[in-house]
Amino acid sequence: LLAFREKVVGSCRRVWRIGADDPRRAVHGLKVGLALALVSVFYYTRTLYDGVGGAAMWAVLTVVVVFEYTVGGCVYKGLNRAIATASAAVVALGVHWIASKSGDKFEPFIRSGSVFLLAAAATFSRFIPTVKARFDYGVTIFILTYSLVAVSGYRVDALVSMAEQRVCTISIGVSICLAVSALICPVWASQELHLATARNMEKLAGAIEACVEDYYLAAAADEEDEPTNNSKKQPSSKAEGYKCVLNSKASEDSLSNLARWEPPHGGFGFRHPYGQYKNVGAAMRHCAYCVEALTGCVRSAGEVHPAKAPGRRQLADACTRVAARCARVLREASGSVRSMTTSRALDMAVADMNAAVEEMQADLRSIPSSCLLLAGSAAENTAATSALMDAAAQLFTVTSLLIEVSSRI
Amino acid sequence: LLAFREKVVGSCRRVWRIGADDPRRAVHGLKVGLALALVSVFYYTRTLYDGVGGAAMWAVLTVVVVFEYTVGGCVYKGLNRAIATASAAVVALGVHWIASKSGDKFEPFIRSGSVFLLAAAATFSRFIPTVKARFDYGVTIFILTYSLVAVSGYRVDALVSMAEQRVCTISIGVSICLAVSALICPVWASQELHLATARNMEKLAGAIEACVEDYYLAAAADEEDEPTNNSKKQPSSKAEGYKCVLNSKASEDSLSNLARWEPPHGGFGFRHPYGQYKNVGAAMRHCAYCVEALTGCVRSAGEVHPAKAPGRRQLADACTRVAARCARVLREASGSVRSMTTSRALDMAVADMNAAVEEMQADLRSIPSSCLLLAGSAAENTAATSALMDAAAQLFTVTSLLIEVSSRI
Repeated sequence: LLAFREKVVGSCRRVWRIGADDPRRAVHGLKVGLALALVSVFYYTRTLYDGVGGAAMWAVLTVVVVFEYTVGGCVYKGLNRAIATASAAVVALGVHWIASKSGDKFEPFIRSGSVFLLAAAATFSRFIPTVKARFDYGVTIFILTYSLVAVSGYRVDALVSMAEQRVCTISIGVSICLAVSALICPVWASQELHLATARNMEKLAGAIEACVEDYYLAAAADEEDEPTNNSKKQPSSKAEGYKCVLNSKASEDSLSNLARWEPPHGGFGFRHPYGQYKNVGAAMRHCAYCVEALTGCVRSAGEVHPAKAPGRRQLADACTRVAARCARVLREASGSVRSMTTSRALDMAVADMNAAVEEMQADLRSIPSSCLLLAGSAAENTAATSALMDAAAQLFTVTSLLIEVSSRI
Repeated sequence: LLAFREKVVGSCRRVWRIGADDPRRAVHGLKVGLALALVSVFYYTRTLYDGVGGAAMWAVLTVVVVFEYTVGGCVYKGLNRAIATASAAVVALGVHWIASKSGDKFEPFIRSGSVFLLAAAATFSRFIPTVKARFDYGVTIFILTYSLVAVSGYRVDALVSMAEQRVCTISIGVSICLAVSALICPVWASQELHLATARNMEKLAGAIEACVEDYYLAAAADEEDEPTNNSKKQPSSKAEGYKCVLNSKASEDSLSNLARWEPPHGGFGFRHPYGQYKNVGAAMRHCAYCVEALTGCVRSAGEVHPAKAPGRRQLADACTRVAARCARVLREASGSVRSMTTSRALDMAVADMNAAVEEMQADLRSIPSSCLLLAGSAAENTAATSALMDAAAQLFTVTSLLIEVSSRI
């Protein structure tokens, strides 16, 4: 029993932390509750209820299904739902007219046949990438509305007034959703995307610095011959920061898809280049792969005995400098993304980085060959530097992309 | 007009290719149509219609919303929908009983208040990772049903019979969905996951081989001093194969989540270790990051003039051998995943690979130091070999994981 109690307390604490980490999540829950409470007023007020009748249910249903965490998600689902319902209703009324003229015998076949064909075609269209990204929800609603209207037309007589009521209630639901989500503590997908990009850059910067630092700290500790294994084995949390960059593709894609639907707000204009965020994200992931490879090298280098690694110290200065410059470029870039400006400081940081890379290459050539004879660990070392250089090259791509982006804003 | 016509033809051809690449997509469309046609029979048959009345609409709605591409997705949504509807109806009837006892004045407030509270709590619970992964859809349906029943209880009298009808129609819809999706050309999420894992391994194997081959081919071409730049610049399609492994996390996660819901079928038992696929996938992504770094090294090595790269040829044999062994291990592993057995050939391939890696390390040490003086390109070279070694180490992890997996089957 005590174990059970501890479990409950533990999971309660975890849930509390989810809310405390990002209070907007709790606010989102309250917003959904508020939107539902607002829509339920339609049931309680006699005059409003008489206007739409039992179809008021559809307003409730719309609010539950359309309300999303970000404003972009809400607009996407709301518009898709409204347009798909309207167009499906028009098509269905047309087919209904044909079916009702065709006699009792053929009527069910025409209705079912048209549902079969349209549903099959629409479902297949969801596999087309563009449709999938932008109209997935709309296609579902199209199938839904079409089959509801076409099939129930067989039993219901006042089909047109039913369709009218439904479109009316759905637009009420959609507008309540949009008002609540955009006016009360709005969560903009574009802003999330923007901040995530800047944050990822800073994490990468921290990881590059921490990784190279760890490498030389470990080397120094080894040379003092102290058994500091436990301090070596735990990479600092900074060095782990790049891991979330590795798998950022899915969330970036969905955010930039949703951000397209958002109206202009704050610094985000009507034709904000959201596609560019994807390119920057891809370049950053590339950079993160390099950091990953670098970490691998550092980890395996930690296992080589330091006495065999004489080449290591000669490069320490150059490497640390390159890493620091890389980190500075990333931080400048992050700052320039945050403020949506091109700063001259960024250009200068890039130039500094390139100079540092060239210095490192020169240092690499000037290492006495006697050291390199013990190639086992020198390989690690040069691999590390090469990965760093690769990362720097990637960074160059990132920054040139960024400059392009900021020139467009 | 001609340009427009060409555009239409082009997009038609693209759509056709989507269907031709994977005919199961077209079959999926037809299956949705079939399920809808089946459910619409309820409207046309007098006796069935009298049984459920106007609530037959809910069966149509359920089919449209629940039908998913994989069987696992169908079961997940169907079970979530059925259980969430039933539990929400029970809670809502309880609240309805309290509200109807509390007098006209307080009734709307009790109803709206309970909707507000429950909706806020349920929406917030969707941010908890476990709930998100397994019951996301169920929570939406819970909110939906609860608010519909609780709110419409204010106007509708025969609430219990309404709830009964609805549960009945929803279970009809769910069972039609399950029958159609599991009996006619079923697409099992578990099988998709299984095949994708095996396919990714083969792609990685091809990429490792092709990458190292490209490197030495380019070197050879350079030494013949022919301007074969164009053949160098285009990496073979094999070498690009690893790119889809890099971003496989999202699809793997969703597939393994859905596969959990599937009933036992074929070689997949009731407690098939789907979680292990995620681990294998993570190890393979790690491997792909190494390949990515390796490709970067090869690309930048292509720009160094070959006269400065004397160390390159000494290692050619060793590198090619390591790459070939790595690829063999991956192919063996892929075969062992496909057949779900542990083969002794895999163990032997791993042993071979480790031997080749050690040979390469020995070769690396024996390179005359005079070559290494020209460290500029030797760095590239050793970086490449180090990345290969890293990849081999990762492979070792993959295979040990695999052996664990297969011992559990």
